[in-house]
Amino acid sequence: MATAAFSPATASLRLKPFSSTVRLLSFYNHHHRHHLNPNKLKHQIILTPHHPPKLFHFNHSNRYITNRQRFSTVVSATVSSGETVEKLKTESTEGLVGEFRKRLRIADIKGGESEGLDKLGQTLTVRGWVRTLRVQSSVTFIEVNDGSCVSNMQCVIDSDAEGYDQVESGLITTGASVCVQGVVVPSQGKKQKIELKISKLVTVGTSDPSFPIQKKKVTREFLRSKAHLRPRTNTFGAVARVRNALAYATHKFFQENGFVWVASPIITASDCEGAGEQFCVTTLIPSSKEAIDSPVDAIPRTKNGLIDWSQDFFEKPAFLTVSGQLNGETYATALSDVYTFGPTFRAENSNTSRHLAEFWMIEPELAFADLNDDMACATAYLQYVVKHVLENCKEDMDFFNNWIEKGIIDRLSDVVEKSFVRMTYTDAVELLLKSKKKFEFPVKWGCDLQSEHERYITEEAFNGCPDIKAFYMRLNDDGKTVAAMDMLVPRVGELIGGSQREERLDYLETRLDELKLNKESFWWYLDLRRYGTVPHAGFGLGFERLVQFATGIDNIRDTIPFPRAPGSAEF
Amino acid sequence: MATAAFSPATASLRLKPFSSTVRLLSFYNHHHRHHLNPNKLKHQIILTPHHPPKLFHFNHSNRYITNRQRFSTVVSATVSSGETVEKLKTESTEGLVGEFRKRLRIADIKGGESEGLDKLGQTLTVRGWVRTLRVQSSVTFIEVNDGSCVSNMQCVIDSDAEGYDQVESGLITTGASVCVQGVVVPSQGKKQKIELKISKLVTVGTSDPSFPIQKKKVTREFLRSKAHLRPRTNTFGAVARVRNALAYATHKFFQENGFVWVASPIITASDCEGAGEQFCVTTLIPSSKEAIDSPVDAIPRTKNGLIDWSQDFFEKPAFLTVSGQLNGETYATALSDVYTFGPTFRAENSNTSRHLAEFWMIEPELAFADLNDDMACATAYLQYVVKHVLENCKEDMDFFNNWIEKGIIDRLSDVVEKSFVRMTYTDAVELLLKSKKKFEFPVKWGCDLQSEHERYITEEAFNGCPDIKAFYMRLNDDGKTVAAMDMLVPRVGELIGGSQREERLDYLETRLDELKLNKESFWWYLDLRRYGTVPHAGFGLGFERLVQFATGIDNIRDTIPFPRAPGSAEF
Repeated sequence: MATAAFSPATASLRLKPFSSTVRLLSFYNHHHRHHLNPNKLKHQIILTPHHPPKLFHFNHSNRYITNRQRFSTVVSATVSSGETVEKLKTESTEGLVGEFRKRLRIADIKGGESEGLDKLGQTLTVRGWVRTLRVQSSVTFIEVNDGSCVSNMQCVIDSDAEGYDQVESGLITTGASVCVQGVVVPSQGKKQKIELKISKLVTVGTSDPSFPIQKKKVTREFLRSKAHLRPRTNTFGAVARVRNALAYATHKFFQENGFVWVASPIITASDCEGAGEQFCVTTLIPSSKEAIDSPVDAIPRTKNGLIDWSQDFFEKPAFLTVSGQLNGETYATALSDVYTFGPTFRAENSNTSRHLAEFWMIEPELAFADLNDDMACATAYLQYVVKHVLENCKEDMDFFNNWIEKGIIDRLSDVVEKSFVRMTYTDAVELLLKSKKKFEFPVKWGCDLQSEHERYITEEAFNGCPDIKAFYMRLNDDGKTVAAMDMLVPRVGELIGGSQREERLDYLETRLDELKLNKESFWWYLDLRRYGTVPHAGFGLGFERLVQFATGIDNIRDTIPFPRAPGSAEF
Repeated sequence: MATAAFSPATASLRLKPFSSTVRLLSFYNHHHRHHLNPNKLKHQIILTPHHPPKLFHFNHSNRYITNRQRFSTVVSATVSSGETVEKLKTESTEGLVGEFRKRLRIADIKGGESEGLDKLGQTLTVRGWVRTLRVQSSVTFIEVNDGSCVSNMQCVIDSDAEGYDQVESGLITTGASVCVQGVVVPSQGKKQKIELKISKLVTVGTSDPSFPIQKKKVTREFLRSKAHLRPRTNTFGAVARVRNALAYATHKFFQENGFVWVASPIITASDCEGAGEQFCVTTLIPSSKEAIDSPVDAIPRTKNGLIDWSQDFFEKPAFLTVSGQLNGETYATALSDVYTFGPTFRAENSNTSRHLAEFWMIEPELAFADLNDDMACATAYLQYVVKHVLENCKEDMDFFNNWIEKGIIDRLSDVVEKSFVRMTYTDAVELLLKSKKKFEFPVKWGCDLQSEHERYITEEAFNGCPDIKAFYMRLNDDGKTVAAMDMLVPRVGELIGGSQREERLDYLETRLDELKLNKESFWWYLDLRRYGTVPHAGFGLGFERLVQFATGIDNIRDTIPFPRAPGSAEF
């Protein structure tokens, strides 16, 4: 059925475009606001009359507009609803800032307090994908989802509706895209307050019967191999929306607090990273298709048989960044408060549910700040973004609460409403010793805390990762400890790690020597201490861990659209 | 002088930290809100009384707090201003969402309508870096900048102020960091309304005399070699703030219009990219330091002498993405409207002022949309972000208007206030033919428009880059043209390129065959047309081009903190 059924359905939507154009150029009229040519003006239906241009014919633009309306005609020709009126109105006021398209989303219809009851009697048009079709004796239900919310629009169609023949001929299957127009009526079902009584149904694109995400349950493991289709499921749609809300709340929080977003570099030839295994970035191997058949001997070499880096793109070995912190510090010591939010990479061969080779990091850096400011910032940040999600993703959070992790809403509400407990390492060790619990790794002062210990402390599952005292952490007066902090949360464990940075040049140089790191390669980092050094602090947060924390999703590969892991970089 | 002078100055700021702690753990109390222990409660000065924890000692936390206050004492011990009171108040209400630190920024003092006159008589504390020191017979001026705005805080100090000895001993030089406390008084100068009469001056960090950014003019070329210090200049501070505002406005625009931000992957082994040269990402070459001495023969090879990709991290060749569009389409055909905003890469050996090897792209994708919706979205987007910058970065824009590009504010205001002219390719060709101008590349219908043509059309300098009709662009009914658009703007030329995507499976497959592209590798992209295809459209915008457009900065390497270009990946 696939192709045969497919073509007619989409053909009904076909845009008949401008017949003799290759490419549309859009630009604004810069110099000629005072030179009107009324003969040409009459064609400028997309321009406001205030500053019409002088130079151009608009016959073709006009023809284009005509074609664009033909597009609308096919999809919603007979639609007389408020939405279409609104859409046409938008078109006529084109050019207004921020106004460009009013597409009615299912979230807009059902998302309000009344869950759509305020729309009763209105004729609306909904566009989306068919989730299920239930044919009953007298009536047929089509569940349509447009990705704006978990909820489907339940649509009811009976045999006298325009386009009912498409139900009969089997075009309306799970995965098909449709445009439905109908009247909002009260729903008899318990799952929703309203439904759409279809007056007209148009199949936009059929779905081949091989569509892999049918009604039957599919595993998340399987869906990972269908990363291009999994956002069409309830779970991954909800994860995408909550992830989006967390990202936006992150920007809002820092912007409202005067932080400047800094793009830390992704590729770096600076050799002062060194935390973890890095990916090499090179053009010595031919790009794309040819790479697969690339002989080793085609790689340029020096007389000694070493790789000849002088012929590489950056003329030296270059790597994918593991952290934007050091770069962030350069901007913090100029603009005071900054944050990075970008991808970072680890080439570690960890094929676990907790690790990604490519993940997004948020790294704020505060100048004129100490560890206490840092902790206060981390706390305020986490509370802000969690509150944002609870308030703005209610339906998605209900979904997670029902289907992914019972009690997650309470858990997150606690984060917002309760105080964070702060505890020194010494106290934590003391607490663990007092617990009389038998740990696999015995506790004593000086040891790194293990998962089992942190899990015990937060009373939740914890994925421990022992830390090394990094060279940049500020040395405490005892000469052996540093001013660092971790924020532990239930389920995820260490969500945030931060420290006050060593701002004293001599201390920092000593530390580099102790760790046998090459001071020369840190010249620019040391410069920050050489020229007007200031106390400063910051932290790092793995964004996908935050998504795990906020959604209850177990496997970190399900928190990012296209996860990268050993052996896995598809799509 | 460097080290000797440096140490005492910073020593005065030294934090005496918690003596026996290694690491602070911060988490919240999950289960024990009802089990109070009054003996321990008295130490919990950082916790609100409502949900105190049961289990932990706070002696050390308490000691930590004490030390934290000692930190404050050194910097602003005698400060009795409203700011400090506010700061202390913030500390006692710690845990409130969004409240974590009130640092008084110079922008907060001088940024209002009255330019600070409303603060007259107040005692304030400012922290920042010395831009200049002017010693006059009776009085000394110190210009302090904290990066929150272009403006310095002009500070006046006379010999009876506390800390004046630091001026005499030469600690207060360009680049040094200071903390100054004083009373706001009217300024005698013309450049500002108010200044700070210093009552107390503390040098936080001295600046070595080698500080490369002295008062004398330095070239932007030179500053590129000091990318870690250049944000301390007026120009790069302003660029960083405007760049930040453009990024935030980008998120705001799309979020307010219901788009979901999607993280398109950075590393991809998918071989359906192919647009432009790509960087290879590999772990076959040892990471970091060892890479420099890596023998070619250490790279694993097959029996035939080819690179043995099965031993690489992803078990096949992997590359840095050149565009997130195809991945974006997978989410648009599930969530309806999405956008990407992330780094993309080109390994092209273009050492020009218009190209970067690493740059950020914004790629929205709209489902149930045609080329007209796409153009409307692009127009509304550009107007929104430009308006945001004009309204929120007034001082920075005045700076660019005065020092970088005269008239830039008018140019940008035009973008917001005037309509965009839309023109078909055919009309553009007709216009060029009529111009009778002699172009280097003669114009005829069917040719790609060159810089000189687009420059002529927008009447501004244009950096042309001829486009190829990409496989994914929707074929028009003439069977030879596609539904694509470019947005041209003065100075930058093509700022946005977009198209309606080919949603018809059979057309798309034919197109792939014509271009001799391997259909198998597009399996997932074709799936989007196989299962509920919908008309959709999108565009791409190079973020650094937008920064150029909005700031008037000539060289694109000055629009991103750490530019990457052939031979250049420092920092």
